[in-house]
Amino acid sequence: MVEQFLRENKQLVDRQLPLYVEHLDAPEIIKQAMIYSLKAGGKRIRPLLLLATLKAFGKEVELGLPVACAIEMIHTYSLIHDDLPSMDNDDLRRGKPTNHKVFGEAMAILAGDGLLTYSFQVIAEMDHQDVTPEIKIKLISELAKAAGPEGMVAGQVADMQGEGKQLSLDELEYIHQNKTGRMLQYSIIAGAILAGASEQQIRQLSQFAYHLGLAFQIRDDILDIEGTEEKIGKPVGSDIENKKVTYPSLLTLDGAKEKLAYHIEEAKRYLRETQIADDVLHYICDLIATRDH
Amino acid sequence: MVEQFLRENKQLVDRQLPLYVEHLDAPEIIKQAMIYSLKAGGKRIRPLLLLATLKAFGKEVELGLPVACAIEMIHTYSLIHDDLPSMDNDDLRRGKPTNHKVFGEAMAILAGDGLLTYSFQVIAEMDHQDVTPEIKIKLISELAKAAGPEGMVAGQVADMQGEGKQLSLDELEYIHQNKTGRMLQYSIIAGAILAGASEQQIRQLSQFAYHLGLAFQIRDDILDIEGTEEKIGKPVGSDIENKKVTYPSLLTLDGAKEKLAYHIEEAKRYLRETQIADDVLHYICDLIATRDH
Repeated sequence: MVEQFLRENKQLVDRQLPLYVEHLDAPEIIKQAMIYSLKAGGKRIRPLLLLATLKAFGKEVELGLPVACAIEMIHTYSLIHDDLPSMDNDDLRRGKPTNHKVFGEAMAILAGDGLLTYSFQVIAEMDHQDVTPEIKIKLISELAKAAGPEGMVAGQVADMQGEGKQLSLDELEYIHQNKTGRMLQYSIIAGAILAGASEQQIRQLSQFAYHLGLAFQIRDDILDIEGTEEKIGKPVGSDIENKKVTYPSLLTLDGAKEKLAYHIEEAKRYLRETQIADDVLHYICDLIATRDH
Repeated sequence: MVEQFLRENKQLVDRQLPLYVEHLDAPEIIKQAMIYSLKAGGKRIRPLLLLATLKAFGKEVELGLPVACAIEMIHTYSLIHDDLPSMDNDDLRRGKPTNHKVFGEAMAILAGDGLLTYSFQVIAEMDHQDVTPEIKIKLISELAKAAGPEGMVAGQVADMQGEGKQLSLDELEYIHQNKTGRMLQYSIIAGAILAGASEQQIRQLSQFAYHLGLAFQIRDDILDIEGTEEKIGKPVGSDIENKKVTYPSLLTLDGAKEKLAYHIEEAKRYLRETQIADDVLHYICDLIATRDH
């Protein structure tokens, strides 16, 4: 049941995302560039977290699909810009040429700008009787905070500034909490806002998401040591080779595994406190703790 | 009176813009990069158009200041990204080193991303009793359309694609109407939305803004021939040197002047039709028609 929910809704998001761009009245080439990266795959973990949160409150998936897609547009824009030559200078992402390798640097920058801007339009134009202007404004305000200079952009800046330096655990957590954590957290909070959760439930789900996000990142670091290239889609051991500060490098591998277990436990504890029907969210916790890619 | 309105409100916007960024909980360096370009000056024509529209409806400037600043943030982000090496590769803007020359390319990209994202937050968080969530959503939706892949981003793409090609008048107008026109138009429409203008007035003001925006661009092209480097802040004749398609190159200098006069007349006609107290907007029309920088 849970697997089916995740599989079917991943397909739904996969189908819906390019449709949002195809109907735009814009030059063909920028639409192609935007769609190229939207279609480049990925686990769609953010949209699924939003839809799973809705489900936990007994709400229909349709209620959250536009926001789920808007979140994936923001995530996609951040990958396009991160991959640019002046940033991480990556030629491949998930085994495919990065956006600027196919469309050129200028178009890649504009495709990112376009996806970022359009994501706010998608939320503003939502057409569902349960989504009031008050709810839309809350969704937009929280999204801008999570993605902007106090969130994801701050994390990216801190990550750049930390390159080649020995970081403390606090500094490492600041980077992850902002660079990836804030948008994971937003995905869950957006689901809760749409579902009409109480302020207390939103606070609890925020805490749940905070721990889930850190667990996600720690597992990533562990996989770089214990994973297989075939499964994770990039060479194993690249963090060590690049002298990157990671949870295992700061805490040892066993220490990192303990930390992972701690954050998963904390996440589950906050999830129980919300007293929602959380089968999918609970399952996603376990998935993140044990994933092999 | 009109000059005083423009001067005082330009100062107000100049003062307010950096304050929005200073209080952000973000790494110092990204705040510096954002503020650097926000403070780099310019005529603040977009904020002033918004505030002048409010005034024409008898509304207070305070009602529109956050949206005026949000618009200038979007304009500033677009300049930072346009100046990047992979785009126009400009070292100077208004006589000062461009953002990436001071902060590096990666930080310039992030400063642009940060300003773009934050502009939506500024509107969503507006705190004025007359600004309902309905009005905010309308402002955000129209802003995303004007700035995004169906607006300013489309214009930038078309401009890039047109480089080195002989363009028709229609193609040239498509570029200008999207690259600069849409955000000028939005500035006026946002003022009208905030002021509670009727649908008919918004349509008329849209037309006013359409013609004003084209007039602005034609005057720009004429200044590149007739202006002085001292006044316009860049070498005269650079369009001809760069073989850029302009209104004078397509229509002759006299033809471009005729076209300018036509759009100014049309703009004024639509402005009269709205029957608002339009002294500042009328003055801005004349200013745009005759400006020497």
